[in-house]
Amino acid sequence: MSLIDRAKELDAADPLAEYRERFDLPEDVIYLDGNSLGALPKATKARLADVVTREWGQDLIRSWNSNNWIDLPQWVGAKIAPLIGAQTHEVIACDSTSVNLTKLIGAALALRPDRKVVLSEPGNFPTDLYMIQGLEAAEQRLASRGQMLDALDEDVALLMLTHVHYKTGEMFDMEALTKAAHDVGALVLWDLSHSGGAVPVDLNTSGADFAVGCGYKYLNGGPGAPAYAFVAEQHHTDFRQPITGWMGHKSPFAFSDEYQPAPGVNRMLAGTPPILGMAALECGVDLIAEIGMERLVTKSRAMSEFFGGAMAEHCPQLKCVSPSDPAARGSQLSYHHADAYALCQALIARGIIGDFRDSDILRFGFAPAYVSFEDTARAVLALSEILDSGEWDCAKFKQRAAVT
Amino acid sequence: MSLIDRAKELDAADPLAEYRERFDLPEDVIYLDGNSLGALPKATKARLADVVTREWGQDLIRSWNSNNWIDLPQWVGAKIAPLIGAQTHEVIACDSTSVNLTKLIGAALALRPDRKVVLSEPGNFPTDLYMIQGLEAAEQRLASRGQMLDALDEDVALLMLTHVHYKTGEMFDMEALTKAAHDVGALVLWDLSHSGGAVPVDLNTSGADFAVGCGYKYLNGGPGAPAYAFVAEQHHTDFRQPITGWMGHKSPFAFSDEYQPAPGVNRMLAGTPPILGMAALECGVDLIAEIGMERLVTKSRAMSEFFGGAMAEHCPQLKCVSPSDPAARGSQLSYHHADAYALCQALIARGIIGDFRDSDILRFGFAPAYVSFEDTARAVLALSEILDSGEWDCAKFKQRAAVT
Repeated sequence: MSLIDRAKELDAADPLAEYRERFDLPEDVIYLDGNSLGALPKATKARLADVVTREWGQDLIRSWNSNNWIDLPQWVGAKIAPLIGAQTHEVIACDSTSVNLTKLIGAALALRPDRKVVLSEPGNFPTDLYMIQGLEAAEQRLASRGQMLDALDEDVALLMLTHVHYKTGEMFDMEALTKAAHDVGALVLWDLSHSGGAVPVDLNTSGADFAVGCGYKYLNGGPGAPAYAFVAEQHHTDFRQPITGWMGHKSPFAFSDEYQPAPGVNRMLAGTPPILGMAALECGVDLIAEIGMERLVTKSRAMSEFFGGAMAEHCPQLKCVSPSDPAARGSQLSYHHADAYALCQALIARGIIGDFRDSDILRFGFAPAYVSFEDTARAVLALSEILDSGEWDCAKFKQRAAVT
Repeated sequence: MSLIDRAKELDAADPLAEYRERFDLPEDVIYLDGNSLGALPKATKARLADVVTREWGQDLIRSWNSNNWIDLPQWVGAKIAPLIGAQTHEVIACDSTSVNLTKLIGAALALRPDRKVVLSEPGNFPTDLYMIQGLEAAEQRLASRGQMLDALDEDVALLMLTHVHYKTGEMFDMEALTKAAHDVGALVLWDLSHSGGAVPVDLNTSGADFAVGCGYKYLNGGPGAPAYAFVAEQHHTDFRQPITGWMGHKSPFAFSDEYQPAPGVNRMLAGTPPILGMAALECGVDLIAEIGMERLVTKSRAMSEFFGGAMAEHCPQLKCVSPSDPAARGSQLSYHHADAYALCQALIARGIIGDFRDSDILRFGFAPAYVSFEDTARAVLALSEILDSGEWDCAKFKQRAAVT
């Protein structure tokens, strides 16, 4: 049976196949980059038009009450919570992942005043490391995965790791590392940017203290969507974060001169919530929640297995750098090639959108909510043709754009 | 001549009258709260629909290049710059006002490592004070306006003031205070939230070091719009801010482990820019720029003078707490009344939206781009009727909503 026929069979048996119609996708594109920017849910268009025209245009300032704008950060956070194994009052949608990292690194250092080391790994997503480097009170320590347990000692205030590696898709054992950190009295912060909505996450079972995550990847919240933050209930009374804006005040509209933190996770808020972004994020989260994590994970694993097998068969020149066990990786597969950038551009020229990651990685993300097996088969065959024809090997595809 | 007839005469002569049609305003509402949330420009609806449907939905991740998403923070910042007397490369749109305050207080403390005092005034907009309180490295000092110059000494790293007071509308002399701060070696940060798009601001002439401002008030950027930040060119090489996210890196897509700041004001960026909010903000800024600050200021002053006179005549029970000189106040007038909250609610019940500010202030904002003189006259007459009838004095209007 041909690769395409096998893919069509898998699509015919796919219980999530119908959900593709809930997204607006361009006709001429195969989109394997939902881990960079998730696709547009059709419902988002109508919701945003209503938020703009009626809620903002007609109801104006009254919408903070009448359309519950003021509650959106908690409301959307509560919808994200079950996707990551958290209680609804432990999650809030706000700011960017980067800003939330600063808040929670600050919170961890304040909870461990006699320690200043933040432990992470080299090659972590850069913003995570930069946030440590920006805080004068923090001392960065980096250890490779094999040395991580040795590097965990009683100087460590916070172990901060990205659960699914953005480049390779390699997944940390959240429960084991959280336990190891707690054993030396350290707190743990998980960056779920490539996990939320894509792989099983159980923050409560693993005992995690803090987490952050991205709204615009697998949650389909739109470009630059608000991020989310998780604070375990046990820290709700004691934690303090340094970006103490008025929306995180106990009584924002009392306009008092003294900051008093709002209860629990609400004190993660800083400025006025971005309502357009929040509304779009809610639509994306609603759709992922409707499909359900179990079905998404099942399809994601089947899809990456199918894609991986097809690549080994049709594009053996590319070496897979992701873990071979689908339960040990995110919803992506990444391949090494010295000319990964040009290959990525050649694919884009054929309407197949994957991702290049400096300096030599070609990354394919599988958003099970809207990607079909046939999409992945066609991508593999196109890449095989590109490799065979050498069409990628030209200046047109080698010249870098501003954002890659 | 009746108040309404006088207002109609002023509207007939108003060169900005035509701009009201460029906004979507509810038919049954008089909106004097553009200083809380600006109205919806009609152009924003089409622009957002296009950003969502075409740029996100069809162009997907490619839009970071093809639709210039990556440049929006600088692009929108450059459009705000002339409205506040700054050079185009000194302003960037990003994050919230609160988050930008944290960045710039941090930047000031780093530029003055031997000082830690941040001087402000009691009763400043609370988030400004809370941001000082959240930073362990900062020591808050508060002085009333009369004592401000005495409180400026060589311990002060940063003088941080809100140019137009959110409650009273009182305006600081930016040039004189900036000079006084510089005379003792302190830096100056101006919060322009109630100034940008409403009153004349000349950051460069006054020699200001830093500024922040709000996108959702007079700039009509939509609920929770991105804020903006100004960093004077002279600091572009040396300043460092603590929220060192990947978008503020010199080469964000090199994914290196070491943070290296981007040139100039670009290093104010932290996380991925919120594209929906940025697009809406750009529409609001475009419209204000088209009308022009000079015409806006002229109308704003004429309007507050007209409103103030009408209030003195028809509602003498309410004491104005704003400066009587229109050149010494923002585009607003505020009134003291023990039952300001109930009065505000009674006005809202008649479709007249002003603002209540705890504990006893009734605030009316005049957004000259879309408010008519007749609007203001009708508001005064309605308030007069409410006061005379006592209709405000009931439980229905006295019970507080969540956001006021």
